Amino acid sequence: MRTQVVIIGAGPSGLLLGQLLHKAGIDNVILERQTGDYVLGRIRAGILEQVTVDLLNEAGVGGRLASEGIVHHSIELVFAGTRHPIDVHGLTGGKVVTAYGQTELTRDLMQARAAAGLPTIYEAANVQPAGFDGEHPVVTYDKDGKTHELHCDFIAGCDGFHGVSRASVKDRIAEYERVYPFGWLGVLADVPPVSPHAIVYGNSDRGFSLCSMRSLARSRYYVQCPLDDKVEDWSDQRFWDELRRRLDPELAERIITGPSIEKSIAPLRSFVAEPMRFGRLFLAGDAAHIVPPTGAKGLNLAATDVKYLSGAFIEYFNERDAHGIDTYSARCLKRIWKAERFSWSLTTLMHRFPDTEGFGQRLQEAELDYLVHSRAASTALAENYVGLPL
Amino acid sequence: MRTQVVIIGAGPSGLLLGQLLHKAGIDNVILERQTGDYVLGRIRAGILEQVTVDLLNEAGVGGRLASEGIVHHSIELVFAGTRHPIDVHGLTGGKVVTAYGQTELTRDLMQARAAAGLPTIYEAANVQPAGFDGEHPVVTYDKDGKTHELHCDFIAGCDGFHGVSRASVKDRIAEYERVYPFGWLGVLADVPPVSPHAIVYGNSDRGFSLCSMRSLARSRYYVQCPLDDKVEDWSDQRFWDELRRRLDPELAERIITGPSIEKSIAPLRSFVAEPMRFGRLFLAGDAAHIVPPTGAKGLNLAATDVKYLSGAFIEYFNERDAHGIDTYSARCLKRIWKAERFSWSLTTLMHRFPDTEGFGQRLQEAELDYLVHSRAASTALAENYVGLPL
Repeated sequence: MRTQVVIIGAGPSGLLLGQLLHKAGIDNVILERQTGDYVLGRIRAGILEQVTVDLLNEAGVGGRLASEGIVHHSIELVFAGTRHPIDVHGLTGGKVVTAYGQTELTRDLMQARAAAGLPTIYEAANVQPAGFDGEHPVVTYDKDGKTHELHCDFIAGCDGFHGVSRASVKDRIAEYERVYPFGWLGVLADVPPVSPHAIVYGNSDRGFSLCSMRSLARSRYYVQCPLDDKVEDWSDQRFWDELRRRLDPELAERIITGPSIEKSIAPLRSFVAEPMRFGRLFLAGDAAHIVPPTGAKGLNLAATDVKYLSGAFIEYFNERDAHGIDTYSARCLKRIWKAERFSWSLTTLMHRFPDTEGFGQRLQEAELDYLVHSRAASTALAENYVGLPL
Repeated sequence: MRTQVVIIGAGPSGLLLGQLLHKAGIDNVILERQTGDYVLGRIRAGILEQVTVDLLNEAGVGGRLASEGIVHHSIELVFAGTRHPIDVHGLTGGKVVTAYGQTELTRDLMQARAAAGLPTIYEAANVQPAGFDGEHPVVTYDKDGKTHELHCDFIAGCDGFHGVSRASVKDRIAEYERVYPFGWLGVLADVPPVSPHAIVYGNSDRGFSLCSMRSLARSRYYVQCPLDDKVEDWSDQRFWDELRRRLDPELAERIITGPSIEKSIAPLRSFVAEPMRFGRLFLAGDAAHIVPPTGAKGLNLAATDVKYLSGAFIEYFNERDAHGIDTYSARCLKRIWKAERFSWSLTTLMHRFPDTEGFGQRLQEAELDYLVHSRAASTALAENYVGLPL
């Protein structure tokens, strides 16, 4: 079997890439190791930069997002028991972000792909990209007891941090990594969010907390916790109590609690692999880079990769111009490193680090105080939050 | 003997405080462990915020500064071999800093004090503040083979990091400290500065460098070096060669070299002692806090302390109002911590840290890139450089 682009991974990056290529008349097949339901079951971020929203509209999947997505004009920082709104909209000349769960986005993309009758092969086992250093890449996989071959012009590795795409070039990449000495305990609950129009970032002497949402009826809350904490030690009641202690009294009072429908502890990681192109194999999204979730940049960075990559493929196939392909890696990495910087910096600013001595703690307090009182510093935060210019 | 305020230390903080008190009709005596010539021989910073310039004018010692000080409208960052001017004046709505050597400033203050006939006791040995927890402080010192007592209402500890003032309350303060894993090798030379109207901060893969000045005929240059380097291993030629390698080619070409008239290696330190008031003893300047010299904040922070302290004493003596005295420590520390944050941040941004792994290095590059391309981030740098509002 043959196609123009084999996309490995049916998460939002792979699905969005497939849709954009399809719109431009470029054939593609998606290979996914898991089932569609498994992919949909992943609980992930849900804050979209305008660049991402625009790209989803371009892909023709922006309908439900436009009606159900909730625009955020600001963010809120809580520290020393006091709330400080940052007027993101005002500080950036009218830019906003949109809250829309990644699960919903994935569902929209899946439905669009199914409606267009595009091939997605789920439960493809033992996927192996090969031949990408030459002119004739091929991806092999096992399915229904047989090994299949997919010949193509390009391979797009959209298969996440643990995927086979980066693993297949692991001797040829430089990896940059930072692991944080804490995790996030997250709870999903079908209760109205305490702050439906702004994410709340809390820094208290008990640690970081975050109030976010998936919709007006589904909330997502987090508290920083030690990495060796066990989910089973966190009853719902203990979680809600702890969250409230980390916020200002008025906000704590307003939180509506309910039974958790998902509860998990995730580690935080910064990671970048360079480069992102290997002949005819291209890495995109989490396959190439991870940010800690603090700045909500993960999905947005993946979308930018996909924007650049789809553009490069379209240029190549439709105009026989390899410029986009040749500059893909450098172009992505320029934006990625700035988002890595922002995500690291917001993580560092808002969390309590177990090994921070007094001086570091005082610096953090001074930085928070400076940030909310300086228009320039608030603007720098806001412009990163809505996404730096492409 | 009796006076209203005993000032320990005849550096710029003590001298400026004495002058401001004198102008308000408050008697003061300065005790200094060293000779006047020794004090004048200290080579220190020379970038004054407008707040500092204003205070010097208020003290009546701004004449020579006004004619000989050199206004800087911008700073320059050099990294990856390229210069990036930051238009401090434009970004801050017209604010500037003034280059004027601390040695010159000290000389002006000494002359003004001598002209006013105010008492300064040099070579005062074994200075000891006492009784400051009660109503009757006294400072004892040895001079000419005798022990003397100076009774007073208040004691101002302006005697620097190693002085007796902080040492005399060392069990009652919280100390916050960070030591940096490198030093600055500095050279003073009577040659025209390569950048007479903007300090140049350089970040290269060989380490930090700085081009500054004392006057249009006297330059001050620095290169980051290992802390265990010996000055005697650095010939003038080696220093100039190293400095040039750390700048962009055009700037390197333009540097005019000459024999060093001073050459030394200084460690970098961040330090804050809290609180700054103990009954009737007040710490000011380096006695209470140290910043790494990267942001040129040391002298300016000392000046702000002196501004607040002189105001507090004047209120107390002339209006019988203790509010300024009671709020002195908190008021100073608010500004100090923001300057500590800025100095730490600029130091971190511009130096190479021996233990920084690849991720940290890439973050630094991303931050520099972001800084010079974002108006908000450049403004944040500029507003800190000229001094945050009081």
